[in-house]
This record gives sequence, structure tokens and C-alpha cells, in this order.
Amino acid sequence: MIVVMKASCSEENIEHVLTVLEKHGLTGHPSRGVERTVIGVLGAVGPSGAPGAIGGINPTIGETLESLPCVDSVLRVSKPYKLASREFHPENTTVEVPVACVDGGSVFIGGDAVVMMAGPCTVESEKQLMTTAEAVRKEGAVILRGGAFKPSTSPYGFRGLGEEGLRLLAKARSEFGMAVITEVMTPSDVPMVCEYADILQIGTRNMQNYMLLDEVGRTQKPVVLKRGMSATFEEWLLAAEYVLSQGNRNVILCERGIRTFEKMTRNTMDISAIPLIKQISHLPIISDPSQGTGRRDLVTPMTLASVAAGTDALLIEVHPNPDEALKDGAQSLTLDQFQQLMPQLQAVAGAIGRTVITK
Amino acid sequence: MIVVMKASCSEENIEHVLTVLEKHGLTGHPSRGVERTVIGVLGAVGPSGAPGAIGGINPTIGETLESLPCVDSVLRVSKPYKLASREFHPENTTVEVPVACVDGGSVFIGGDAVVMMAGPCTVESEKQLMTTAEAVRKEGAVILRGGAFKPSTSPYGFRGLGEEGLRLLAKARSEFGMAVITEVMTPSDVPMVCEYADILQIGTRNMQNYMLLDEVGRTQKPVVLKRGMSATFEEWLLAAEYVLSQGNRNVILCERGIRTFEKMTRNTMDISAIPLIKQISHLPIISDPSQGTGRRDLVTPMTLASVAAGTDALLIEVHPNPDEALKDGAQSLTLDQFQQLMPQLQAVAGAIGRTVITK
Amino acid sequence: MIVVMKASCSEENIEHVLTVLEKHGLTGHPSRGVERTVIGVLGAVGPSGAPGAIGGINPTIGETLESLPCVDSVLRVSKPYKLASREFHPENTTVEVPVACVDGGSVFIGGDAVVMMAGPCTVESEKQLMTTAEAVRKEGAVILRGGAFKPSTSPYGFRGLGEEGLRLLAKARSEFGMAVITEVMTPSDVPMVCEYADILQIGTRNMQNYMLLDEVGRTQKPVVLKRGMSATFEEWLLAAEYVLSQGNRNVILCERGIRTFEKMTRNTMDISAIPLIKQISHLPIISDPSQGTGRRDLVTPMTLASVAAGTDALLIEVHPNPDEALKDGAQSLTLDQFQQLMPQLQAVAGAIGRTVITK
Amino acid sequence: MIVVMKASCSEENIEHVLTVLEKHGLTGHPSRGVERTVIGVLGAVGPSGAPGAIGGINPTIGETLESLPCVDSVLRVSKPYKLASREFHPENTTVEVPVACVDGGSVFIGGDAVVMMAGPCTVESEKQLMTTAEAVRKEGAVILRGGAFKPSTSPYGFRGLGEEGLRLLAKARSEFGMAVITEVMTPSDVPMVCEYADILQIGTRNMQNYMLLDEVGRTQKPVVLKRGMSATFEEWLLAAEYVLSQGNRNVILCERGIRTFEKMTRNTMDISAIPLIKQISHLPIISDPSQGTGRRDLVTPMTLASVAAGTDALLIEVHPNPDEALKDGAQSLTLDQFQQLMPQLQAVAGAIGRTVITK
Repeated sequence: MIVVMKASCSEENIEHVLTVLEKHGLTGHPSRGVERTVIGVLGAVGPSGAPGAIGGINPTIGETLESLPCVDSVLRVSKPYKLASREFHPENTTVEVPVACVDGGSVFIGGDAVVMMAGPCTVESEKQLMTTAEAVRKEGAVILRGGAFKPSTSPYGFRGLGEEGLRLLAKARSEFGMAVITEVMTPSDVPMVCEYADILQIGTRNMQNYMLLDEVGRTQKPVVLKRGMSATFEEWLLAAEYVLSQGNRNVILCERGIRTFEKMTRNTMDISAIPLIKQISHLPIISDPSQGTGRRDLVTPMTLASVAAGTDALLIEVHPNPDEALKDGAQSLTLDQFQQLMPQLQAVAGAIGRTVITK
Repeated sequence: MIVVMKASCSEENIEHVLTVLEKHGLTGHPSRGVERTVIGVLGAVGPSGAPGAIGGINPTIGETLESLPCVDSVLRVSKPYKLASREFHPENTTVEVPVACVDGGSVFIGGDAVVMMAGPCTVESEKQLMTTAEAVRKEGAVILRGGAFKPSTSPYGFRGLGEEGLRLLAKARSEFGMAVITEVMTPSDVPMVCEYADILQIGTRNMQNYMLLDEVGRTQKPVVLKRGMSATFEEWLLAAEYVLSQGNRNVILCERGIRTFEKMTRNTMDISAIPLIKQISHLPIISDPSQGTGRRDLVTPMTLASVAAGTDALLIEVHPNPDEALKDGAQSLTLDQFQQLMPQLQAVAGAIGRTVITK
Repeated sequence: MIVVMKASCSEENIEHVLTVLEKHGLTGHPSRGVERTVIGVLGAVGPSGAPGAIGGINPTIGETLESLPCVDSVLRVSKPYKLASREFHPENTTVEVPVACVDGGSVFIGGDAVVMMAGPCTVESEKQLMTTAEAVRKEGAVILRGGAFKPSTSPYGFRGLGEEGLRLLAKARSEFGMAVITEVMTPSDVPMVCEYADILQIGTRNMQNYMLLDEVGRTQKPVVLKRGMSATFEEWLLAAEYVLSQGNRNVILCERGIRTFEKMTRNTMDISAIPLIKQISHLPIISDPSQGTGRRDLVTPMTLASVAAGTDALLIEVHPNPDEALKDGAQSLTLDQFQQLMPQLQAVAGAIGRTVITK
Repeated sequence: MIVVMKASCSEENIEHVLTVLEKHGLTGHPSRGVERTVIGVLGAVGPSGAPGAIGGINPTIGETLESLPCVDSVLRVSKPYKLASREFHPENTTVEVPVACVDGGSVFIGGDAVVMMAGPCTVESEKQLMTTAEAVRKEGAVILRGGAFKPSTSPYGFRGLGEEGLRLLAKARSEFGMAVITEVMTPSDVPMVCEYADILQIGTRNMQNYMLLDEVGRTQKPVVLKRGMSATFEEWLLAAEYVLSQGNRNVILCERGIRTFEKMTRNTMDISAIPLIKQISHLPIISDPSQGTGRRDLVTPMTLASVAAGTDALLIEVHPNPDEALKDGAQSLTLDQFQQLMPQLQAVAGAIGRTVITK
């Protein structure tokens, strides 16, 4: 951390900053330049080793110093996350998911091959789920998505079938050999969802639901952590750090669009998140073009764009009859559209030297 | 709801839309213009009376229709919220909070007088809390704020004293006669927080934590619902609708800044939310200039601006020694600054014909 | 246009709306429903045929009606742009650019093949430009980009070589047979830039510089219109409409990233603009991953993603020695990186059934 | 400037950074810490004294260094603006405007008293302008606003009366003794607008129209520089620096709302800009609640909020019959509403110890 003093600051001001630093357990080294003084701070602010090593240091100390009238600005040298950082963990992390229908019995998210996760936004009925699962499996999807607990912006909307939805997902798994990913919305549901699901999904609205992050961090289940709808990359990695620091290293990040001024798409899908996260983190990153755009007519091109940009997996909403869906029909592909997507996806993956796991 | 067809649409397309509407329990009335056809839809989409009356209608049906290739756009005539809407509840709602130290034993948020809620961001120790409470009470604050459970962006930050913090708040209440407002972060904590607090606060990160909203909706405690950091007014009122529709009518909205591209302030405080919410809703609205700006040097002017714009109450962070605060010292006023603020606040309130409750 | 009245409105209110409509040359048709009255408005608001046909109708009449206390909202049925709209011009537009070095002597932007435009951000010297032009031409670029007039956020930054830069671009054109694209920043420079350039570029800061749009609209030069940094799709198409309505139909749109809360990238590149613009407009759309991300390490993946999403051309910054560039070195590829990019780009284009024009 | 190296960097990497710095005329001083090396850079990047002193230093050198694979981040110590900075110009600047109707014959924007600038969005006719001018003058406005050249998002909208509008403004000035503020949109119009106007307004879409900024910088007329709709505070001050560095020190900043995700208001008016700009700059700051909100029902509360937050002047749109306005009627106050506003404004100004100039 570097404290930049105002040009007009006095020696007393500098002393005051040094005293404040000391009270927070830190040491400052002033360097007096022609135009202004800067104070280098020793003692890491942020995790300095194993989680917990930080002791009592206040992560908002930077802002506190910046609020002093004699201080111009405070520059941060360290990253606030560590376990999620590529700098301290140079090799890619891959997350293993047991999948009965593939050779070898499991897939590795974050490895050489791209993985397709597809299925309905929400589990509506056994027939809807089984039809969809069978169709997407036939085209090469190996993980089945489907919501049993659904966040609904309106209290009058459909909020999912709950445990009955989970049971249907488990049934589809045993029938088609696919793994199951489904959302968990609150800490007390974690044990129940863990019983049925292979991957826990944390939704965009819960990216900073810290007690939920703690709770899934105490399991060893793979966790797909969606980007909060207005989360910076740093906040997203800090949310991952919550899960990682509880001991669960099976974290997968998922870009699903951010909120901007543009309303013709439901969200603005930030494809650059894919290569950028790969630069700054070792965690796998996947993409959700259905949520990312909210428009069926954009799902196919944005899927192909994600693959070209390096995504490790895809989450695609598919519905046998989207016009009658109880939720988010507008962004679901039909079974036909999904069938047409898969060979295109394989061609683009091939063009950048990757394969797609389908069996 | 009005479905606008594309200029090029055929009669079959129109029939298809009518069929989709029927499958969702709605009836369409086409009106063929020179340039294009529009279809008026009867049957309310969204709550049409008492909560629950909506039956099985899908709130995303509009998007589903919009995704049809023959449809240009879908225009919504009804508001998706009802209990929170001024249109269906023209009179102002006031929320009563029992406060021992004032004449009459309670204050009404949303009434003629402005209410000051002040205290530390986070309860750190008995001494810090008591010193602050005594000082802010002396200047006229009647409600004590203080976090026992704190959301921290980093897992390595201070997350509050938990129940011990609640006990200290209750002690301050009994000593100074103030009411207590504090945050509740997860459904399972609601009963415990209700035991100690007079007002439950839902933080910005939890504005769409629907299970938490349900849970506080099942109590009768006043609830301060902070605006999500990227929530539209509509989403915010829908979050209020969650609480209201569970039977708790004591909802108070709180503007606390939104996320924008500007980083010199922690958030961009949207003062226009105050008069706008008063136009479209009957619920009280208060403001939090500490969170709204993140900078101590902006808290006083933004407090005065909030009052001039019509805020019903203020949430202000005050700390006896902000430079040593464990969290968010940068945005806390000193006791001196708070003392200077109160007469200015009273002068501005007076200028627009309101008073400030201080006893 | 449809005017939705408040539930509480009176007959007098409805009459008032009808009178206001009449004063603006429009006719209203009230339709009284159970819950509320809506008024359908005849008479197009927005261009109703050839440009100019709109006569004196005020495009902000919708907002004016919405500001009446008895009106709940105003819903717009027509699009405000017409010449740029796919609805009124279903076939793709292709823009021909004369390029000496390719078979046939010209390329068509918006056709089956993808076109590479590459070169330095800013023309710095003859040597820098010639080296870059030669290298990018060798790898298959057919259009040379390079700024002679440069917008600089700081008045103390490098603002380009001006006409000397244009002369160097023309020299590179005659030497390598490439076409030249360069920015024009102010109406009075249009004739001069037209003398040297094959494509005029309107930069993001000038997307709503209406006098400049008028001026380039009065030429027949191809115009690349960059998306304003906080422009909606509608505003962008309205800017295109300015150029089109002056008689210049050679408009090419260019996605170059929008401003969001995320600061780790210079802009958030909105890849979904590519397929979306293709849905709502017939104009070609190209992409600029250098400006779109501001980071060299993201240019290659975002180029490939753009191609997978359907871009018609690419604008890529390349510099022989980016570390010494006078401007925007951070986002320029080295000559080596550009050489590696081209075969990947061709592979991805091939995967979606397109070719890349290189000769 | 401080260059933070990656933890994994080698001595060669450090040497490379030093070499790049040297090529840009800068000197680096490495400081090797336990965890990583940081390099302090001597030689100012940004204006180091009188404008022009910067010589050839590239303001994007920071980004260039940051793009090196061995560099983690680059921290900027200096501000990129100087003439606009409070740090180098501690006293408030006041801008004198000659106003015949007030005692003393001029007003000082940025002084103790608040100034009201009011009038129609656009000059539509002599009658409309004279009626409005007379009415707002009667209530205490001393500066008349009115657009002769209007930016219109649509090419089919009303773009103003041009020079005829300027003549009408000048006529109103001579009749009522008010000063006149009006927008100038392109460099070639500056001399003409200077003939008629007392204050030149640069609109939000032109905040980064650098040739226009240069041109008004070469006059000595007061310039109201509106904040760009997605401009950061830093970019805004850099735009002011353009005007200042040309020799025109009469710059007044104007907050008029920024673009956010919220669409119920036309813009999100950032009231915190008022006290924040006063912290970091010595220039006067005024506010435009009409553009800032786009809604008449919010103009009065946002005017009062601006005053409470410390604004130096107000720009308010007033129209004798807003329902018939050719542009932006929705955000114009009626004459009656303006009459009611003025005493409230004076009361709030009084509450914070300021007066309002009315004669």
C-alpha cells in the first residue's frame, strides 16, 4: 500500500498518518519528493499467507487513510484475494465432475475439452424434464441443468418445484447418465441440494450472500459461482475466495452478463471476462449465453463467441416448447435449435484446437 | 399488455400469437392498422387483486411473446407490483417505531417530521457503542444504528460481533431510550435479530434474497429495505412487494447509492429516488449518505440534499475515532462533525416546512 | 403510440390528452377498459416514409404526454429510425470499398467474407507506418487503419500528425495497394480527409456530433460509425440515420466497447451487438477489439469471438514496437502477434462457413 | 507513477521496464520488497508546470507499462489535470458575467450567492421567448437560457432556429436586462454565438469535442461545460483543462445527470458531484435538474437538493405551455411552478447561509 500525501501537507500530517498506520499494526516509510511525499506501507493488507494469517488487519484501512484531509490518495499494491489468484497458483485448476455417460466416468471442467451443460431453465414436470434431458444428451450434452429453486423478481412468479424438482433431476440423471447442476438459494437448503446434485450453482443475486458461500465452502461439491449482475472481477474473485477459504477448492466461475444502460438485451454479456479471468485466476470459467442475453436469437452466436474466446463449458437453456414455458421461455432454445448448435460448436472448438466432450 | 407485430407478419402469425396467449390463459384482441397489427391482451399479467389472485400466470410471458420471430415488441400496461404502488394505495404509509426517549413513546417514519438514525457502521466494543450512542442521542438522534452481522466483500474482513453485538445494542437502547436498527443477513437469524432490534435492515446485497424477504415478511417488525446496488426502481418495489405480500406492511425503502462507472465515490447516490419513489409508491423513503458516497467529506452536503429532496429519515454512520474504526471509517462522521450537522439539518428541514424529531 | 392513463383518471383528463394530441397534429382513440383507459394514437410519430415526411411532429411528444399528471405511461409502437431498420429494408446492405491489392479491385463489407483492417493506432512516422503496413498486408490485411487526427482525453497528449499523417497514409496505400481508413473529427476537415481516405471513421466521442454526421452524410464515402461509449442500440441507429438521411447509404457500424462499472478493461466490449444489430438493421457491423478491451492480451480471443459471432470486419491496432508507441501501445498487437492471429481467424471464420479476404 | 511488478518477475524484467521508461524520457527507481518489486518513476507524467511543459511525454505510458507481461499494475501518483485542480489553485475561482438588471451590473458565479438561469429548452418563437423571459425575470432569474442550436437524437427532430434564435435571445436580453446563455455545437459557429451570448454552453454530447473546446478556449467568454453523459470526474476536469490551457479561465462546470441502468428518469443526477468537485477543483459548479431528471415532477425537489448540496447556480427549463413545446416539454416547469419554486429555493439557500441574486 502506498499513501500519496497532498502537495500541501505538513510534517505533522505525515506523523499523523504514521500514527494511524501503527494503530492498525502497520509501518510507514515516507519518501519526500520534490512535488509531494509518498508513504510506502509495510505489512500486508489483505491475506498474507494462509487464510486467517491476516489477523486483525482491516481491509478498509485504505479508504480510512484516504479520508484524511492531508492524504491525496491511497494506492494498493497487493491483490485482496490470494487463493483465487493465478499469481500464487500458476497452474490451471480443473474441477472433476462424475458423469456416468462419458468414457472414464468423469469430466474435468477447465481441461482441454469443452463441456456442454444444457436443460430447461426450470423443472416444470417430469415429461418436460425427461424429454429435454433425452434430447440434449442425444446431441452431446453431458451435464443436465434445471432449476428446482428459482429466484423470481416478482413474488407472484413461479419459484420452482422445490425438492420435487430435485427428485426429478435425480431421476433424469439415473436414466441418462448425465451429471446434474442446480441452484441452491439459502444456507439451510445446502444439505438437501447436495443429496441430489453433482454441481451446486450460486446464482447472480447470491454472489455476495456470504453465509451461503460459507456453507457451500464447507462441502466438497463443485460450485458454479455466477458473476453478480454488477460485480467487478475483483468482487467476483473475492466471492470465490469465500468458498475457497472454507476448504472447497472446486470452484468454477460463470459469466452470465452484467447490468448496463442497454435494455434491448436482458444483460450485457461480457465475453472478455473469459480470457481476462484466465489471466488473473487459475479457476475454470464457463459461460451462460441464455441468461447473458435473454434472447433466443442471440444464444447461438454468443455460444460460438464464448467458445472462440476460450470458455471451458456452456450453460444453455433448452425447452421442448419454449412458448409454453413457465419461466424464461424467451431465452430457451428449442430442441431443434440445440441440435443445430452442437455441430457448429464443435467446429469452432476445433478451429481453436479444442474438442467437445460428448461421450 | 399489447403485442406489437412486425410490419411483415402474416395472418398465421397473428393466429399463432392468439394461441400462445390462450395457452397462458389470456385473450388477445387484434387491431389491424395501416402499418402494422397490434394485439391488445385482456387478463391481467401481474397481480390483479389480492396477492395470490394471479393464479398460474407467468410473469415472463411478455418476454416469451417478444421472442417470437413475428413479434416486434411487447408493451406492458400494468405495473408488476401492486401492494407497493401509490396507484392502488393513494395515501402515504407511515411506519410506527416505538422509541422510549421521545414524547409519545414512538416515532412515525413517513410522517411530517424527519427522523435521525445514527451510530457506528459496526458494533466494535461496548465502549465504542456507548460513547457513540450517548453522543448522537444528545444531538437529537432517536434511533441507533449499528451492525452486528456485517457483509464484508473480503472473507478476511471483519464480519461483526454477532449476537454479542446485538446484546450491546439492546443495552444501549435501554440506557439511552433509543430504538435500534440492525441488519439481518440470513433467514435463520431473523428470530434472533427480532428479539433485540426494533427495525430490521435488509442490506443492498440481500435486496433480492427472496427467502430472507419472505422471512421478514412473516414478522410485523418494521423493515428498512435498502436499494440493491444495481436495482431499478421497479425491482426495488418488487422486493418490497415480497415483504408486503407476506403480510408485513411496515416497509421503509432506503436509497444508499447505486453502482455506476464513477469510482471517485463508493456509489452514486441517487437523490432523485426520494421524490420519485414518493410519486410511484406510498411507502416511506429514507436515505443513507454514508454508504451512498463512501466519503466523510460528502456526508454533510448529501444529508442536507436528501432533506431538501424530501427524505423521511437519515441513516448516518458516526464513530468516536473513525481513523481507528475496524470497518468503513472513511465514511463515518466524527462526533464533532455530527454535532455540527444537526442544526444545519434542522434549518434545511425548516426551510421546506418540516421538523426534525429529537425528543 | 399508446397513452396509458392512470387508474384514477377522469373524463376531463382523457379530453385533455386528446386536445394535446390534436395540437401536435395527432388523433387519439380512447379504449376504456375495466381497470384503466388506454388511448391509441394515429399519425406516425417518427419518420413515416421518406425522410422529411414527418413534417413538424415533435419526437419528444411521448415524454410530454407522460409528464401529464393523469398519464401513467406512454408506449411507443414505431421505431424512431427507418432508413437504418431491417424491417423496412430486409436485405443486407454491403458497402463497396475500392482496394487495389485484391482480386476484382474492391471488397464488400457486409458480404460473405470477413475483412481485416489493421495498422497503428496513430501515424507516428513514415517508418512506423510503412513497416506496419507492409507487415499487416503480408499477413492478409487489405485495409490500413491509422489515425492522423486523434482525440486525446488530455490536452497534453499526442493529437496526431494532422495532414502530414494523411499524406503518409496515402503513400502507404499507393505502395501496398491497401485501402485507407482514418478518423475525421470536425465538419471542416471532411473535404481534406476525403481527399486522402477511402473510409471515413467517426469516433466514439463524435457519434452524436450531429453536424459532423450531416457533413459526412453529404459525401458518398463509406463511413465507419463507432458506437458511442454509452450509446444504446437505438441511439446508434439514429446516428446512422443522420448519415443515411443526408443521402449517404454507405454506413458501417462498429462495436468498440461500452462504458460500464468494470475498470480492469478499458471498455466492456459488447459482442452481442454483432448478432443483435444484424437482427434489427441491414447495415454491416464490424468490431474493434483493440479499443473494445484496451488490453493486448485480450485482443486475439476477442477477435476470434467477434468472428464467431458474425462480425463483417475487424479493426486491429498493430505496432512494430508497442512499448514505444506514442499512444495506446497497451492495446496494440506486435507484428508477431498479428502474424499468429491471422491463421486462427481464418480457422474460426471457416468453422462458421465464412472466408477471409486476403487477396 | 509507481510500477508494481509481478511476484514472479526476474531481474531482466526489471531491466526491461527501466529501458522502456528511459525511452519515454523517464527514470525508474526499483525497490525490492519481500513479496515483490515496485519501481518508483521520477519525471512527471502529466502536466508538470505551465501547460506545454510536459513536452513529448505520452499520457498513455502507464497503460503501456501495464501491458508488459511482467508488470502487475501501474499506480498513478499525479493528477493528469493541473489548471483545473484545487491542489495547485487553492482559492475558489469566480466567473464574472455582465448582467444589466442587477445591482453592480454583473454577477459572480462561484461566489457567495446562488444564481438562477432559467428559460425555455429551445427558442421557438418571439412570443414564447419574451413571455418566458419576462416571467422568469419577474421571479428573480437573472440569466436567460434558451437553445438556438439544439442537439436532437433523431435527425427528424427540431434542431432549433439557428441565428434567428440567437437574435431573439439578444432582443430578450436588451428588453429585460438579463444575460444570455446558449449552446454552441461546432467550432465554426463560435464567433457567431459569441456575438449574441454572454455565456457559451458546451453540451453533454460535446464534452469531448476537442476542437470545439480549443475554440471556446481561445475566447474569453464564460463557458458552461456540461458533464458528458458517461464522463468520470477526471475526464470532465480534463475537458475543462482543454479550455483553461488555451487561456480561457472562465470555466463553469455543470452537473446534468449521468447515464445509468435506471430508465424511469432520463438521467441519474449525481448531486454528489457538487461537493466533490468543490473538493478537487477550484472551478464553480452549477446544476441542471431539468436535463438531470427529464421529469417536471422532480425538478423542484432536485433544485432544492442541489442548493442544499452547495450548487453555485441553477439551469432550469421553463415554458409558458410545456404541453405544446417543440422539444423537451416533459421536463419544463410551467410559469406557475417556477413562481412557486423561487421562494423555496431562497429558503433553502438561507438555511445554509447563502443568498440568491435576484436584483
